[in-house]
Amino acid sequence: MPSNTRPALEQQDRDDPLAAFRDRFALPDGVIYLDGNSLGALPRATPARVAEVVAAEWGTGLIRSWNAAGWIDLPAQVAGRIATLIGAPTGSVAVGDSTSVNLFKLLGAALALRPDRRTILTEAGNFPTDSYIAQGLAALLAQGHSLHEAETDAILAALGPDVAVLLLTHVNYRTGAMHDMAALTAAAHAAGTLVLWDLAHSAGAVPVDLAGCEADFAVGCGYKFLNGGPGAPSFLFAAPRLHAALRFPITGWFGHAAPFAFDAVWRPADGIARAMAGTPPILSLAALEVGVALAQEAPMNLVREKALRLGSLFSELLAEHCGAFGFRVLTPADPALRGSQFSIAHSAAYPIMQALIAHGVIGDVRMPDILRFGLTPLTLRYTDIWDAVQVLRTVMADEVWRAPEYQVRQKVT
Amino acid sequence: MPSNTRPALEQQDRDDPLAAFRDRFALPDGVIYLDGNSLGALPRATPARVAEVVAAEWGTGLIRSWNAAGWIDLPAQVAGRIATLIGAPTGSVAVGDSTSVNLFKLLGAALALRPDRRTILTEAGNFPTDSYIAQGLAALLAQGHSLHEAETDAILAALGPDVAVLLLTHVNYRTGAMHDMAALTAAAHAAGTLVLWDLAHSAGAVPVDLAGCEADFAVGCGYKFLNGGPGAPSFLFAAPRLHAALRFPITGWFGHAAPFAFDAVWRPADGIARAMAGTPPILSLAALEVGVALAQEAPMNLVREKALRLGSLFSELLAEHCGAFGFRVLTPADPALRGSQFSIAHSAAYPIMQALIAHGVIGDVRMPDILRFGLTPLTLRYTDIWDAVQVLRTVMADEVWRAPEYQVRQKVT
Repeated sequence: MPSNTRPALEQQDRDDPLAAFRDRFALPDGVIYLDGNSLGALPRATPARVAEVVAAEWGTGLIRSWNAAGWIDLPAQVAGRIATLIGAPTGSVAVGDSTSVNLFKLLGAALALRPDRRTILTEAGNFPTDSYIAQGLAALLAQGHSLHEAETDAILAALGPDVAVLLLTHVNYRTGAMHDMAALTAAAHAAGTLVLWDLAHSAGAVPVDLAGCEADFAVGCGYKFLNGGPGAPSFLFAAPRLHAALRFPITGWFGHAAPFAFDAVWRPADGIARAMAGTPPILSLAALEVGVALAQEAPMNLVREKALRLGSLFSELLAEHCGAFGFRVLTPADPALRGSQFSIAHSAAYPIMQALIAHGVIGDVRMPDILRFGLTPLTLRYTDIWDAVQVLRTVMADEVWRAPEYQVRQKVT
Repeated sequence: MPSNTRPALEQQDRDDPLAAFRDRFALPDGVIYLDGNSLGALPRATPARVAEVVAAEWGTGLIRSWNAAGWIDLPAQVAGRIATLIGAPTGSVAVGDSTSVNLFKLLGAALALRPDRRTILTEAGNFPTDSYIAQGLAALLAQGHSLHEAETDAILAALGPDVAVLLLTHVNYRTGAMHDMAALTAAAHAAGTLVLWDLAHSAGAVPVDLAGCEADFAVGCGYKFLNGGPGAPSFLFAAPRLHAALRFPITGWFGHAAPFAFDAVWRPADGIARAMAGTPPILSLAALEVGVALAQEAPMNLVREKALRLGSLFSELLAEHCGAFGFRVLTPADPALRGSQFSIAHSAAYPIMQALIAHGVIGDVRMPDILRFGLTPLTLRYTDIWDAVQVLRTVMADEVWRAPEYQVRQKVT
């Protein structure tokens, strides 16, 4: 174990092969940003690119930019970039809509492939919107589908002949625990079940090999580790072997085989393009592309190695400097079982986080008791973790968090 | 009838009470933009606002901006502005997702309100994506729903006891013909049918009084007459009297009664907020708000009056200067029956439009034979119509459109 003194960590920062990436982001002074798992930081290249799209492509090019500026190809272009980050073959990813809508589309298409099965299986404690979408779709179909939530260690046992789809989030949004995608996918397939992976906390953060795992479907988020900006478009993946049979429930004109023929009857486009629905959001796609292109530049093995070291460092420093304050570590210690965030529990999580934010250390809380810290190797230094833990120590030791202003609940937590 | 000489039209431009709005848009030199019905022009205020959201709110504010910059309230704020343009009560409009997805949500909710009926009635020649969405939803539900397309003059006769929803576009995308919203809504209600109005070519362009017409549902586009930018978010409307019973098919976390409680079970938010699905696209919403706010400044009676005059002028000048070239006018002459575009047919529509665009007059085509010209009173001058018709006359008289480069089909037409 390295010696966790600040000078030693300064040396680690100097030796960090990813160190140069930090300057590619526009980070505010006086802030240690540990919430890149909720909203990724702004790439320095994004403002100029967005300004170009707005002023030149929209303002001057006007409608001509659909052809002249390549807007029509932008969704597939961004999708192709994302594919390289998640081990997806060319032509298996589509970009557009929100994660919720893409989940709906994939889940609808998946259920149609298993017409004799009525169960959607998920993990208890999965990100709620995944469950919400499944609940809404089941109610809409009115064919007796239901959502079954199994505890983590009971997922395999719950796979059975009625399970159409296994819907899992690869890295848990609360604890940062990571599933074994290959093993769970294989187990599901052995039961005749399709698997839909939510990569919200995975894409750009941890190695993902959808093709190698023979994954069926995946969905992911553009505004977390892909740094696409607030509410950035989401992406979806479907294995090419399934494409010809896929019938997505939302059949919009951009998924049509010939969108500008204005045919009377919807016909699916070839391949994953049939997953597209409405007109793609060009400004947002342009911003997302900058974040994705930046992520493509960083070797994933180095990203992963640094994320694990940042997590281990946080855990060690917490034990050493904040051991007296009653924090409970939620993120697994085993590197194979954790993603790129560090989560701890404390009964006063909310005011503690408000005090941290007020003192320049930005994470977030998931009620009632979880403090989440995102570990984004492209923007964080080892010394940032040191400094954050020192702020946390002060907030706890001096009971800073008890101040009335930190008890006030915000709309968004 | 005014005397249609260029000097007379210059005087009309000087007398135009909306003339000052033109300078609020960043229009390129050398272009007469007659495609604002497809992609609205860039408001001058948009680049600075988008830059502020990107650099300050995202870059510096980071995750804090959900509260501090009011991102969480932005969708409802933009929706409230749009409501004022379409005669919708406060709290009856939601913004987000694409028009296709919003149509899907509304149509799903509408069919659930008429469980004993199986027909969706629309107009033959309606914008295809409206029909596509209905076809896809019917296939998904697998309950025997079908889409019936009636000719325009047969819509009333097609209303019957099995028609759950009448799905109509207020202003036809090809011809610019406008329906009588009040009369058709009343006729549908008399048959027990709900009505879903597509306002893509209406919002910001023609007077719309959803409340006065007792409309049930409406959907509309952010990037046409609302000038929200390419792929801007769409809006949807549902009458408040229906809200409590509405079950939208896509049940995402932003439509939950308490999105940040992360409850296991989806519960609908009060009112129209339940129509929201995923995380709202902040950059796009900020751009859209600028366009909508600008539209709010322009008195609709003046906008309507000028649009009608621009259309009549186009028709008169076409007859006078291009009468020999075989154009057929598609847009009704009756002001009560037309929206804010002027459409003409010609067998060589495609190359004619390419030649017009190459000579600075930008409209678009809808194959096989329609040339569309959007009439946007906030950016257009009466002399622009004169100049455009002169270019058209040259393109036709000199057979400019026969040049080989104008025959090449673009991806987006």
